[in-house]
Amino acid sequence: MDTGVDDALALAYLIASGAHIVGISATYGNVLQQQAARNTRVMLDVLGHADVPVADGARHPSWAPLFVADAGCARFHGRNGLADLRIGTSATPKERPGRVIASSADGIVTLSTADVRNHIRQGHAISVGGYPVGDPHAELPTIPEFFARAGLATSEKLGFPDEDCATMTDGARLIVDAARRYGHDLTIVATGPLTDVDVALRADPATVRRARIVFMGGALTQEGNCYDLVCETNVLQDPEAADRVLRAHADTTMVGLDVTHRCLLGPADVARWLSVVGEGNGNDGDDAANGDAGRAGMRSQRHVAFLLASLANFSIRANRASDPIFAAGMPLHDPLAAAVALDPTLVTTFALPMIVETRTGDGVGVRGRTIGDPRAALDDATDTHVALGVDGAGFVRRFTDTIAGFLASLG
Amino acid sequence: MDTGVDDALALAYLIASGAHIVGISATYGNVLQQQAARNTRVMLDVLGHADVPVADGARHPSWAPLFVADAGCARFHGRNGLADLRIGTSATPKERPGRVIASSADGIVTLSTADVRNHIRQGHAISVGGYPVGDPHAELPTIPEFFARAGLATSEKLGFPDEDCATMTDGARLIVDAARRYGHDLTIVATGPLTDVDVALRADPATVRRARIVFMGGALTQEGNCYDLVCETNVLQDPEAADRVLRAHADTTMVGLDVTHRCLLGPADVARWLSVVGEGNGNDGDDAANGDAGRAGMRSQRHVAFLLASLANFSIRANRASDPIFAAGMPLHDPLAAAVALDPTLVTTFALPMIVETRTGDGVGVRGRTIGDPRAALDDATDTHVALGVDGAGFVRRFTDTIAGFLASLG
Repeated sequence: MDTGVDDALALAYLIASGAHIVGISATYGNVLQQQAARNTRVMLDVLGHADVPVADGARHPSWAPLFVADAGCARFHGRNGLADLRIGTSATPKERPGRVIASSADGIVTLSTADVRNHIRQGHAISVGGYPVGDPHAELPTIPEFFARAGLATSEKLGFPDEDCATMTDGARLIVDAARRYGHDLTIVATGPLTDVDVALRADPATVRRARIVFMGGALTQEGNCYDLVCETNVLQDPEAADRVLRAHADTTMVGLDVTHRCLLGPADVARWLSVVGEGNGNDGDDAANGDAGRAGMRSQRHVAFLLASLANFSIRANRASDPIFAAGMPLHDPLAAAVALDPTLVTTFALPMIVETRTGDGVGVRGRTIGDPRAALDDATDTHVALGVDGAGFVRRFTDTIAGFLASLG
Repeated sequence: MDTGVDDALALAYLIASGAHIVGISATYGNVLQQQAARNTRVMLDVLGHADVPVADGARHPSWAPLFVADAGCARFHGRNGLADLRIGTSATPKERPGRVIASSADGIVTLSTADVRNHIRQGHAISVGGYPVGDPHAELPTIPEFFARAGLATSEKLGFPDEDCATMTDGARLIVDAARRYGHDLTIVATGPLTDVDVALRADPATVRRARIVFMGGALTQEGNCYDLVCETNVLQDPEAADRVLRAHADTTMVGLDVTHRCLLGPADVARWLSVVGEGNGNDGDDAANGDAGRAGMRSQRHVAFLLASLANFSIRANRASDPIFAAGMPLHDPLAAAVALDPTLVTTFALPMIVETRTGDGVGVRGRTIGDPRAALDDATDTHVALGVDGAGFVRRFTDTIAGFLASLG
């Protein structure tokens, strides 16, 4: 999980559904890995499952040794990934002009303008939310000269290192160990980039392939949510890793924008959670949540309800402001993937060998695009189960009810 | 029909199946409209159906008043659209250095380098197989300076005129008249750009909408066949028209690369046609066909077999040379669409409101891409039946058998 708002709601759904969570690998994506780990622990604690192990997953994609969280993500998840609620202290140092905070395998590093230049000169990529520094979409607000178009190497010139800089992580090891222990009974639910799943599959393909994989990501029949409207964010973060996972001959289900955009959680749904705790009159939970809902160890019924409502309402507002197609609510991306892990019948799937394109241009496609494998008949390709159909209103009801039931059980 | 090789084979399949062909609108696309009309008449004649009316359809897309056939099409269809077989005289004047042959509503025109410059300066687009002159993909071999990258307006700068230059044509009128006469019993099979279908739908939406539309074009779950691997050729020729057709609230079936790339006609299939006429030993029909197979009025069993075999073998060779995924044969694009018009059960379809993106760039997508309508829930959108599943080998067998049976019936 790259724990932002919808990852947190997915976690709440899994816990509310009584899923056996073997462990969580916290990875980079919506936020830095360090923040994701912290957010995951905070949520587990609030939800009464502090015993679930949280392992440190990948801190950068397989194609770049350094990762910077996308400035745009803060709009949908808050700067801390959890709707900017004051939940303990922040894990990530503050950025300042001329400096950018990045994460490498060794931990958090602060890069100066000169450092960034140096990395580019040496051919090391820096991923900014999936885009290499130098790409016009790689927004570095604290070092604006690096996302101005003029005079910079394009992503094509910068290139993506052929060298694979994926590293074994505790998160990947957690996946391998769980697959060894649980085999076919394990479901790997990926709600962030697939970097750790890829590393785990490569470390022990025969074993990890026995687990079922359900990932939130990609788009096949609908527009993507990246700038180009072709790619989806999780896959764009590490297209090479996603491509390898899709070709790994595992039992893989793709829960992408094809279905998640039809599951919109609205303010009325969230209000139901508050009504469970007797707070249905206009208070959407934000004030209370900002006050103390997330304080470690606090997990009274009211506080849990306020926290979840605040997270959801933050995302509902952000999505509504971003696009008229989200006027009705926030898309339940990660919660749907988590729910499909528990109940595959929630979606209808289309069986198709899939790939991710890793280059952009004539004859090669669009980097980050999830698409049918044109060479499937020639290659020894395995079908991915691509979720194309969902009863959106039905799932939103189930999700709302499940969380409401969980809240009631805390009373 | 923009009658090239696979259009011709689709026509043969329709005739062999005993379909009632009300009429054919010959349009620009694989070749100029004038050539398509001629090719259609030649094929009807050879196949013994010279009585089917052939109307002149669109000579240019709705976004450009001038159309030049793509140099690349000649590779797959021959310079005359019919595998360069010597079938009567050529309809299109020969190009020479510094001159390009284009088609406008008024007929064929020869443009000099200065003419092309003039049109660009005045903001008139010239479509070269779907790409505006000035786009690096708009290949004009006789005026190479117009497809060199340097110093030319990009397609974005050139733009696509907001002004719609679609014109009513005899072909569009044929469609409207047929819809008036046959209503729900009519199926419009489009194997080329959708320009005429769009014009017909706009001329009398209530009536034309009653007909069923089956078009060959688009790609949803597979890569496209244009340079970018996103778009499909027929749709790219006139994205605006295709977009309007998809939004016209008609009963529309899209037969795209999702299914046609799985129906590969191979040399052994073609050999069966020749064996029907006692020519199974190594003669693939080319020599005989080049000799006289297509001469008007000649339609002995042998000559029809040789003609169809020669067309197919030309395409099989061209496809094999183009991509390893076509090692097994030529994709039966147009024949599958024609067959689905007669028997919808040949494919399984996915119901999805569809659009065509008409601009390329951040937030707008890729000009020519066929994709789910992101605003379907807000708009009053109608599902398109997108063909996603097909028994490829089964259809190739049916196609081969149907043609073989037709040939036998001529004996």
